[in-house]
Amino acid sequence: MCQGFKFAGVVSGLKKKEQKDLGLIYSEKPAKVAGVFTRNQIKAAPVLLDMQRITSGTCQAVIVNSGNANCCTGARGMQDAISVARWTAEKLGVAEEEVLVASTGVIGEPLAVEKIRTALPDLVNALDADGLSAFAEAIMTTDTVPKVVAQRGQLGGASFTLTGVAKGSGMIRPNMATMLCFIMTDVAAEPEMLKEMLVTATDRTLNRITIDGDTSTNDTALLIANGVSGAVIKSNADRKEFQGVLDTVLMSLGRQLVKDGEGATKLIEVVVKGARSDADAGQIADTVAHSNLLKTAIFGEDANWGRILGAIGRAGVPLQPHTIDVYFDDVQMVQNTMGCGKNAEAEATRVLKKPEFTLTIDLKAGNGRSSVLTCDFSIDYVKINASYRS
Amino acid sequence: MCQGFKFAGVVSGLKKKEQKDLGLIYSEKPAKVAGVFTRNQIKAAPVLLDMQRITSGTCQAVIVNSGNANCCTGARGMQDAISVARWTAEKLGVAEEEVLVASTGVIGEPLAVEKIRTALPDLVNALDADGLSAFAEAIMTTDTVPKVVAQRGQLGGASFTLTGVAKGSGMIRPNMATMLCFIMTDVAAEPEMLKEMLVTATDRTLNRITIDGDTSTNDTALLIANGVSGAVIKSNADRKEFQGVLDTVLMSLGRQLVKDGEGATKLIEVVVKGARSDADAGQIADTVAHSNLLKTAIFGEDANWGRILGAIGRAGVPLQPHTIDVYFDDVQMVQNTMGCGKNAEAEATRVLKKPEFTLTIDLKAGNGRSSVLTCDFSIDYVKINASYRS
Repeated sequence: MCQGFKFAGVVSGLKKKEQKDLGLIYSEKPAKVAGVFTRNQIKAAPVLLDMQRITSGTCQAVIVNSGNANCCTGARGMQDAISVARWTAEKLGVAEEEVLVASTGVIGEPLAVEKIRTALPDLVNALDADGLSAFAEAIMTTDTVPKVVAQRGQLGGASFTLTGVAKGSGMIRPNMATMLCFIMTDVAAEPEMLKEMLVTATDRTLNRITIDGDTSTNDTALLIANGVSGAVIKSNADRKEFQGVLDTVLMSLGRQLVKDGEGATKLIEVVVKGARSDADAGQIADTVAHSNLLKTAIFGEDANWGRILGAIGRAGVPLQPHTIDVYFDDVQMVQNTMGCGKNAEAEATRVLKKPEFTLTIDLKAGNGRSSVLTCDFSIDYVKINASYRS
Repeated sequence: MCQGFKFAGVVSGLKKKEQKDLGLIYSEKPAKVAGVFTRNQIKAAPVLLDMQRITSGTCQAVIVNSGNANCCTGARGMQDAISVARWTAEKLGVAEEEVLVASTGVIGEPLAVEKIRTALPDLVNALDADGLSAFAEAIMTTDTVPKVVAQRGQLGGASFTLTGVAKGSGMIRPNMATMLCFIMTDVAAEPEMLKEMLVTATDRTLNRITIDGDTSTNDTALLIANGVSGAVIKSNADRKEFQGVLDTVLMSLGRQLVKDGEGATKLIEVVVKGARSDADAGQIADTVAHSNLLKTAIFGEDANWGRILGAIGRAGVPLQPHTIDVYFDDVQMVQNTMGCGKNAEAEATRVLKKPEFTLTIDLKAGNGRSSVLTCDFSIDYVKINASYRS
């Protein structure tokens, strides 16, 4: 585990059921921090507060609640976020500005801050170096499993650890940011460098996933580095090493998020290659990854490739319409924009029965390439979201 | 009914069940024609054929099949479309180039043209001035009801009629065109003028509807004018009169299409006003109208307005984030980006139980305005599309 960090998760009563809903991350030493936040223009109060506080580059604790997003709650919502941070700081004996806040859950209801205040002593008492799973559970909303990952690396002879934790699993289409995601490391690095590496990593990983196309109002990803391991990022080689480990951690969390997407039964990597540019490939991959017609067909295990072609054609990217190939894993379904026949379809249907597979689209028009992780669209997605607040 | 037109619809065996799947429109006199077609870059063979033939500005018949889109079928698909038109022309005794073709159904399977050839004598025999309902039925795919409308107008003392017929009800997000839609009129007008009026009308009506966000490969709208009534569009006043009737006809078809959207239980008009421009309003209305989270909440009759704000904020339009109001019909749910409380929510829930209602978003930042018709997103949508080909 990551040295010098403690975690906790408890029940405060914000969720209707008796489930953990309040989590705390605490660094024994003041740490450096960088963050990326939702580009949704409707931002929750905790996001707005963190965007101010993070400019200092330091933090020592993050308090997170599920069950309520504290979004569209006006001046009172901002006051509530500040209060929660202040009470947490008092209990921990740290400066108020060193506490960041995150919330997730229903939009538009006032946060029941008294429940949080009442639960705070228990939460602080529960802090433990092994408390990460309790924390991961406390930040879940419609997630069915907690998402954590740990990875080790080496910098000039000193070993370090990166530990990541995230939650999904609806309103997920990160846009230059991500859902709630916290990455702790015992490396030492300056906040500016942490920020650059976090932006690079999220662009490569969490910004290339989608569940339902709805960018959240509360997306927050924090990278917190306390330097306790003695490993320091100094040279370009150090930086490359750390970036690699960070990318791996975020990619793992991204896969876990999509795999546990609301109602999802399949994880699909949509790869577009042979485009005129990477940007064109990205736009086509995004359009295919969001097609409800395709996502429902995949849920039905129907290799309905016509819907893939339909989505490619409406992506707003200039195309050669007659040179498109499509593969399900290594089974070619479409050659030059025409089907490969019944045998190929039977083989593709076998691929569709797998819980994870790759859908490759080759435009044969250039060297542009991009990929997106997505999931299928099931009856349970509708059930979950038709009754989310009841 | 529209003078000088005959219609028919029969069973040819293209659909799995014993249902009408072949339709014919015939004008006793050669008619002027204009069309708009899908902007999807993957276009079905009949669309490509019609785009060539319509440049002549005249046509006398349209043969339409359901059960197969004749799309992604390569050179053979184009040959098949040409053959179907030729056989139809032979039976009707008209020139081959005067026959247009439309197809709708599964993408990527060869069209069983021999079934069409065999059914053609019966189809031509069935032509009847009262045959429109049989035709409307023959072009249905997942539609549960046929969509027709007729409207009368006056031009300089002569009365005329406009008759429209359309089909939905999945892969519906018209983009500068529409799904299959045929409008017949006994007015006389030149093709260029018909085209301008058709483009104006579709931009105002059919291009402002959506069911599932997937623009079809086969979208085709034809306006066919045979001049039999004696009414002629000459002056600007004539043109305005005709445009008004045409807009009404297409708006009616648009409403019918969304109301019968796959699995839909509710018809919702999303109105955005107070935007900085009409274009901004349109972009926000589109984003809200396509939010799966909102559409599933509406299916669940849950007035989850936070999802509306979430969609507004991610629409990519610069916003004043703190001045947004939201109404369900005339019930105000949100004032200045905050909820109006439990009473408002209870009233809004009553609105949500209605089969049709208006969702109004007021940004209070300008005079831009736009609206989109959309539907909810139900368990049946997923069921229909998980098993569409089986």
